[in-house]
Amino acid sequence: MTDWNARYAPRMSRMVASDIRERMKLLARPDIVHLGGGLPDPALFPRARIAEACARILGDPIGARTALQYALSEGHPPLREWLAGYMASIGAPCRPDNILITNGSQQALDFVAKLFLAPGDGVMVELPSFIGALRAFDAYEPCYERLPDGATELRTTRAKFGYVGTDFRNPTGTSLSRAAREALLDASAALDLPLVEDGCYEKLRFDGADIPSLLALEIARTGSIDAGRVIYTGTFSKIIAPSLRVGWVAAPEPVIRKLVLIKQAGDLATSALNQMILLDVAAASLETEAAKARAFYRARRDSMMAALDANMPPQVTWTRPEGGFYVWLTLPAGLDGNAVAERALAEGRVSVISGAAFYATAPERNTLRLSFSLAPEDAAREGVQRLGRVLRETIGG
Amino acid sequence: MTDWNARYAPRMSRMVASDIRERMKLLARPDIVHLGGGLPDPALFPRARIAEACARILGDPIGARTALQYALSEGHPPLREWLAGYMASIGAPCRPDNILITNGSQQALDFVAKLFLAPGDGVMVELPSFIGALRAFDAYEPCYERLPDGATELRTTRAKFGYVGTDFRNPTGTSLSRAAREALLDASAALDLPLVEDGCYEKLRFDGADIPSLLALEIARTGSIDAGRVIYTGTFSKIIAPSLRVGWVAAPEPVIRKLVLIKQAGDLATSALNQMILLDVAAASLETEAAKARAFYRARRDSMMAALDANMPPQVTWTRPEGGFYVWLTLPAGLDGNAVAERALAEGRVSVISGAAFYATAPERNTLRLSFSLAPEDAAREGVQRLGRVLRETIGG
Repeated sequence: MTDWNARYAPRMSRMVASDIRERMKLLARPDIVHLGGGLPDPALFPRARIAEACARILGDPIGARTALQYALSEGHPPLREWLAGYMASIGAPCRPDNILITNGSQQALDFVAKLFLAPGDGVMVELPSFIGALRAFDAYEPCYERLPDGATELRTTRAKFGYVGTDFRNPTGTSLSRAAREALLDASAALDLPLVEDGCYEKLRFDGADIPSLLALEIARTGSIDAGRVIYTGTFSKIIAPSLRVGWVAAPEPVIRKLVLIKQAGDLATSALNQMILLDVAAASLETEAAKARAFYRARRDSMMAALDANMPPQVTWTRPEGGFYVWLTLPAGLDGNAVAERALAEGRVSVISGAAFYATAPERNTLRLSFSLAPEDAAREGVQRLGRVLRETIGG
Repeated sequence: MTDWNARYAPRMSRMVASDIRERMKLLARPDIVHLGGGLPDPALFPRARIAEACARILGDPIGARTALQYALSEGHPPLREWLAGYMASIGAPCRPDNILITNGSQQALDFVAKLFLAPGDGVMVELPSFIGALRAFDAYEPCYERLPDGATELRTTRAKFGYVGTDFRNPTGTSLSRAAREALLDASAALDLPLVEDGCYEKLRFDGADIPSLLALEIARTGSIDAGRVIYTGTFSKIIAPSLRVGWVAAPEPVIRKLVLIKQAGDLATSALNQMILLDVAAASLETEAAKARAFYRARRDSMMAALDANMPPQVTWTRPEGGFYVWLTLPAGLDGNAVAERALAEGRVSVISGAAFYATAPERNTLRLSFSLAPEDAAREGVQRLGRVLRETIGG
């Protein structure tokens, strides 16, 4: 037998399974209330629209040849063009040459890290940060630096880029204010620091006024995406359906040209069929689907806020997200979110995620992430009650 | 403006566009005969079967929830199970835990390199080799060593793995004999050298007896895939349709467990919808589709062989593939395949690929790769005539 462990590249010592992805395996158990993984509710997926799109695309003998053949690594040209227009519609005009199609925005994060990071290079991340980004970056063995909440504290950095969630961030559910975005762009310009903006929840605002993305604000300053330092990653996984695995990067053209080489070497191209389905559905009904998703998840957010108000012990605090999928709980200092999450699962049959996994460095262990996206309102209320019981017992004991 | 070039990781200096992928952009020109890229002919894609599968999957409200949701990183369990049975049918029995689903076999090559290679590590490749593998490996900055044609020459190596095409290899169209496979397995065992076997043309044999894969031969020796050192990459892109982007790796379970971490960090999971479509089509009609493809491409191979016999100047030699998509031409010593390919495109309006791009080291520049997969027989005959004319003029001048 060969000793496989002795053969792996050093990066593998950094790579661990994502708690959240592993939690997906619990979904088969109907006795558990799932407030863990941030899955969209399949009840919302526009199944009939996707089926119609697929039938239309494959029903056309000429179009089907494109749909079933290898695609260009850059992406299906009509989708790149449509996305350039979509980006303009959210205040960030760009050209098709500023767009690369990826397998969901997760692949965009992997590719950006592959483009910039050599072992030991710095990358700035928020504390806490999206776990999928940390897992993607880990493969390139970076050193993490903390991206301060107030960018005015940011005086110097050797980081290759900063990674930023802007709207209803995973995991905290909080958003960067407009002033904070402007300050971050000031720092980016002063320090010549590229910013990777995760825009995946941008269309999921329930309340409050839209805040332009970092990319939009920067284009307003410089006049062109090509003159700036923001690399925006997008997806419609939360609004249409994750399994199409079609996301995108919008970035200055020289960056896209390099990312195309990475895409070519990585998996040649994203499925042409999936790109054509996404284009068909998004062009006809993105705004309808987004409005439906906002109304649906707003009701779940409201219900979870009411359940938290009614059931949490007074020592626990939480965020009040204006959109997205997540609430972030802070437990009394000294409580370990891991132990609480395990006890909640074992005794309360409610799945929540310990917050520590979201920290690249210096985890605040007395934290939990709850998602209100998947569990129906009655079940979620029941889950929050059970969590409240476990927390009262833990704090009391 | 930021100086992007100064920011990229060192790997980017190795990453260049694949000649072949770039050639895809010529496909829009109807005046050109395409003997370049190895695209399958879309006339063969089972469009109606794929459309039926998609309608069936999305027509079932419960199944559609799985099809449109995030999938497990390992792959859709019923597809893993079916592929374990498929591997048994080609002599290489394994369990579902030995299978990881990837976005085509290109992603499998990228992930294997990501698992094993740190900068400067050795990797053994044939000269010439599949260009997609070289482009995937390049991103991890390896040192290439030559995998000798006769493995008996292989006495020592520091390579992390050897990469081997077995059947009708891209680019040469030649296969490893059974004796060569056994010798390679001897060397792999003696040197404790993992072998990455590219099985992507295994079902496309037109003539001659099947030769078991390296994986099958090794399992016959050791009794179990888990006891061996072969990592097999597979795809049905050449038989069903490339754009599903569903390939797989079959490997010892410890290797699969690590590759799953890479998949999770890389793009979370392959599209569940695409996996379910592939399973539906393959389970019902893989053998029918494979037989259809063999008959179709055999006729094209025969026609191209006849055209080469009739049109090549006597100083040119070529391989006689028993399957696959490719013929490899050797030009008179001193002739530059790059210059010939450019002249063939400009003067002959026929697209062929210069052989030099397929060499990790020490290119033999007097080589060309022709593909017989895409151009209809009349067009291909015309293309070979034009190439013959260009070659006679080049050799004569």
